[in-house]
Amino acid sequence: MSTSTAPHPVRRIVVVGGVAGGMSAAARARRLDEHAEIVVLEQSDYVSFASCGLPYHLSGEIAERGSLLLHTPQSLAAALALDVRTGSRVTAVDTAARTVTVVTADGRYTLGYDALLLAPGAVAVRPAVDGLDHPAVHSLRTVPDLDALGGRVTQLLTGRAADAPAPTAVVVGAGFIGLEAVEALTARGLRVHLVELADHVLPPLDPELAPLLADELRAHGVGLHLGVAAQRVAPRGEDGSVTVTLSDGTELPADVVVVNVGVRPASDLARDAGLALGPTGAIRVDADQRTSDPHVWAVGDAVEVTQAVTGAVGPVPLAGPANRQGRRAADSMVGHRTTPQAPVLGTAIVRVFGLTAAVTGPNQAALTRAGLDHEVVRIHPAHHAGYFPGAEQIHLVATFAPDGRLLGAQAVGRDGVDKRIDVLATALRAGMTADDLAELELAYAPPYGSAKDPVNMLGFVAQNVLDGTTPQWHPADLDAARADTLVLDVRSPGEFARGHVPEALNVPHTELRGRLDEVRAAAAGRPVSVHCASGVRSHIATRVLLQAGLDARNLSGGWLTLSAVHPSLAQPAATPRTAA
Amino acid sequence: MSTSTAPHPVRRIVVVGGVAGGMSAAARARRLDEHAEIVVLEQSDYVSFASCGLPYHLSGEIAERGSLLLHTPQSLAAALALDVRTGSRVTAVDTAARTVTVVTADGRYTLGYDALLLAPGAVAVRPAVDGLDHPAVHSLRTVPDLDALGGRVTQLLTGRAADAPAPTAVVVGAGFIGLEAVEALTARGLRVHLVELADHVLPPLDPELAPLLADELRAHGVGLHLGVAAQRVAPRGEDGSVTVTLSDGTELPADVVVVNVGVRPASDLARDAGLALGPTGAIRVDADQRTSDPHVWAVGDAVEVTQAVTGAVGPVPLAGPANRQGRRAADSMVGHRTTPQAPVLGTAIVRVFGLTAAVTGPNQAALTRAGLDHEVVRIHPAHHAGYFPGAEQIHLVATFAPDGRLLGAQAVGRDGVDKRIDVLATALRAGMTADDLAELELAYAPPYGSAKDPVNMLGFVAQNVLDGTTPQWHPADLDAARADTLVLDVRSPGEFARGHVPEALNVPHTELRGRLDEVRAAAAGRPVSVHCASGVRSHIATRVLLQAGLDARNLSGGWLTLSAVHPSLAQPAATPRTAA
Repeated sequence: MSTSTAPHPVRRIVVVGGVAGGMSAAARARRLDEHAEIVVLEQSDYVSFASCGLPYHLSGEIAERGSLLLHTPQSLAAALALDVRTGSRVTAVDTAARTVTVVTADGRYTLGYDALLLAPGAVAVRPAVDGLDHPAVHSLRTVPDLDALGGRVTQLLTGRAADAPAPTAVVVGAGFIGLEAVEALTARGLRVHLVELADHVLPPLDPELAPLLADELRAHGVGLHLGVAAQRVAPRGEDGSVTVTLSDGTELPADVVVVNVGVRPASDLARDAGLALGPTGAIRVDADQRTSDPHVWAVGDAVEVTQAVTGAVGPVPLAGPANRQGRRAADSMVGHRTTPQAPVLGTAIVRVFGLTAAVTGPNQAALTRAGLDHEVVRIHPAHHAGYFPGAEQIHLVATFAPDGRLLGAQAVGRDGVDKRIDVLATALRAGMTADDLAELELAYAPPYGSAKDPVNMLGFVAQNVLDGTTPQWHPADLDAARADTLVLDVRSPGEFARGHVPEALNVPHTELRGRLDEVRAAAAGRPVSVHCASGVRSHIATRVLLQAGLDARNLSGGWLTLSAVHPSLAQPAATPRTAA
Repeated sequence: MSTSTAPHPVRRIVVVGGVAGGMSAAARARRLDEHAEIVVLEQSDYVSFASCGLPYHLSGEIAERGSLLLHTPQSLAAALALDVRTGSRVTAVDTAARTVTVVTADGRYTLGYDALLLAPGAVAVRPAVDGLDHPAVHSLRTVPDLDALGGRVTQLLTGRAADAPAPTAVVVGAGFIGLEAVEALTARGLRVHLVELADHVLPPLDPELAPLLADELRAHGVGLHLGVAAQRVAPRGEDGSVTVTLSDGTELPADVVVVNVGVRPASDLARDAGLALGPTGAIRVDADQRTSDPHVWAVGDAVEVTQAVTGAVGPVPLAGPANRQGRRAADSMVGHRTTPQAPVLGTAIVRVFGLTAAVTGPNQAALTRAGLDHEVVRIHPAHHAGYFPGAEQIHLVATFAPDGRLLGAQAVGRDGVDKRIDVLATALRAGMTADDLAELELAYAPPYGSAKDPVNMLGFVAQNVLDGTTPQWHPADLDAARADTLVLDVRSPGEFARGHVPEALNVPHTELRGRLDEVRAAAAGRPVSVHCASGVRSHIATRVLLQAGLDARNLSGGWLTLSAVHPSLAQPAATPRTAA
């Protein structure tokens, strides 16, 4: 066999940005091309640091700060003959002369390139909050951010009296990093308040799943302030504490404030160099990561990608795609065969104390914005065989096109969430349908799954919905269901007594066949909106009613989702209405 | 919306066999057809029992025997209006008259059917061992098996002196159930010997992964007897103990013997009824589970399926496919839209103490038997970010066709194995290639995975192998590599000193560029067989050598796989040969 990497005229490859995508590109380029000079210019003092690991060192779970620094310029020189220069900021690119201007502590110089890779990453969005320059205000994106925030937390905890009240933190922004910061600060013993402008935590998550995270946050003592903005940070005491004022007038005292409200592409350098940017300000690249200049490539948080399913175009700041883009850019730069970029699914995951939340593909709001018709399936299966100890419920939501194609999926639960979202991300990439999910053959033994895995169940339910076997209704339809239909609750009387829709008729599913006349009379010609706890028993009941000639439909997600979306329902009604 | 289940003339559906496939079919048929009479005939006293859970009640991990009995005839009558008859053995099918003959404790009767579903399962293969009728000999397939075996174990453990030696068990057959039985008996405190005719435990596993399981078994005190047959069970003492004699002459005293050497389709009833069987004795069915008789369907362990990739035809006794076949048969019986059966991947998983082993698709031996060219990729990545506490190594083997298509995958490890095999099973079903795996977008945060997930890594390595970027050699090539090439070990001197190939030259990968002349001289025109611990550093080294004009290749799986396949290598050599 021979190598397929033909000799290529590249002499010097310059990489701007020494983390994730940039470093992946430099390493891959070296493996493919032993003869090129490869220079990596990193403006900070660190390369190849574990960006996603920062919150876990803040919490103390990753004990050693050094664990986050995966490589040094020295180790990269030894293994890969890379010329890695930290503290080296690139201030200009001259695409005509093929040079970059590099500024260091010692001055500035010009460096020529044959191929240039821009991996500048993103910069934190600075929200419109007064007083953000106060030293109590921190971010959590870089090693220096971590050092400063961690230092402040340690200072707050050092020398405290055992009975002193816990220091307080306000975290602004309940996205992925915000939630990780909340978890970390709580683990350190701080009392944490979380402020989010959207009406639910983790805005990418569908609103019916977010209450599960909110409950978990509250159970760990986190104060939630949803649907409000932080407006002002003002000095409070001589100890460096502040008061954070919210848009609803709430004043939160805080010893430390962490702001993470998202990022924007660090594309100034590219723009100034005349490279084409997209409307979101991200660098435009082709399927091989090449920019509008044939000698310049770009990867990572700063570039534009096409999102799967919706076709939306914009930056998606995720480590996985960045790393693969780096590899692809290297292949392209040295003339190796490339694997063209596929649309990005936006697969992401976060741990929130004992819960895991994960998403792949567009959420329901994004589908609606894109005008894409979809059916929503919600299930709550056990993560492994229910009879095996330790089975945990997974709350799973998936969307399907009318033709059966999977469009997106989300899940929250205590175990097995990452596995199901990874399977669904793979299925989504493959263009699988409800039929395909139903027939997936996943590994089953009682400690790991079920003979009918949750992913199979999603397929089964979607098949029934899409082919009309079992029409469904949705938690958002509750008002209309109460006004215009008979709400039929087929749970047991005990479950019913613990909370139910006020107008509901309770007929346990096992009694339904014998009480059809009663249901028919109560329906009085109206449709019947059936539900149970999760949707399984009510599926049977809906089928019984349909075949008895009633216009029945099954509640997607059952009482579990309904009561999450309408928390007032979860309070037991004063006088449960059970049928005689 | 309307139901798509058109009225159908079926009046009575008879299901033979009330577990997995049979009960799935009965339940689905009822949900689709409220008006049919549905009779389930089960020869044992139990329906819907958790077959796969039996070993975990034997161990005590599932405390309540009742947890294994998921439904009763009464609960099935209440929820689904099924007429479930236990203790009812079907002895004959008259396809012309459309009747079955049913034998019960009270006599026999004939029952007519409009549609008949056969879900008779499998029967244990009885190996050619003398003395198998001894009461100390047990199996572990049914609830009565469990009761008898569990009773014997409890009897052995009851009233023992605290310092009495542990009772001993011999388990014959190291397949999935055999391994689960070993784990369970060890958990109960027995001293267990495992006897397997094949030369490695879990014969479906590739031989380079099996040593990991063998080590785990030995670490838990299990005596392994591989490549030998049990020949005779003979009474030993008055306490009911026996002596098991193996083909190598070993005599194992045993208080209890468990035999699980596989199953064969329980297709006698079908054969006697004149239904077509395949050459393996399994019932032949079409893609809708219909047998050669238009009014008879069949599902589960007794039917023939086509295996994915190899196209081999035969029975595959797995719960997942059985359940889905039941659903499909019900759809077909009532005239509902069906999802035709896809080729079976044979995805399976087993827990062996702290390890998990899982497979999907054909193993290497099956590919070779089928004459399918394939390239084998072996990696040992961490199951989540290496810098996050608790990272465990996954030992992952995947096979690819020359055109890049994934053919099969296997994994062993302490965590994250089920997830990767499920993703790979999904990829395999989708017909994905190495390029597709490289580009999969899986959920990444440090507690769950890596920015380059093990599945992505499989894709990267396969790309490099298949496009010729990095040719590889295999553990099986060791003798030839030692005889005809320079074995170059690029690990650190410390690693080298702990064990290495006797003839190997040790040049750490970080020194390679400076010592190329030395390597060239040592190679003396021969190819260079490079390796490191796992294949990562040696990939870099191989690329350096190739571009320096040497004929280099990288060891698939590195020292980790090499020393598993050649355990004698793991002993440190007396005089490590390090280059001056």
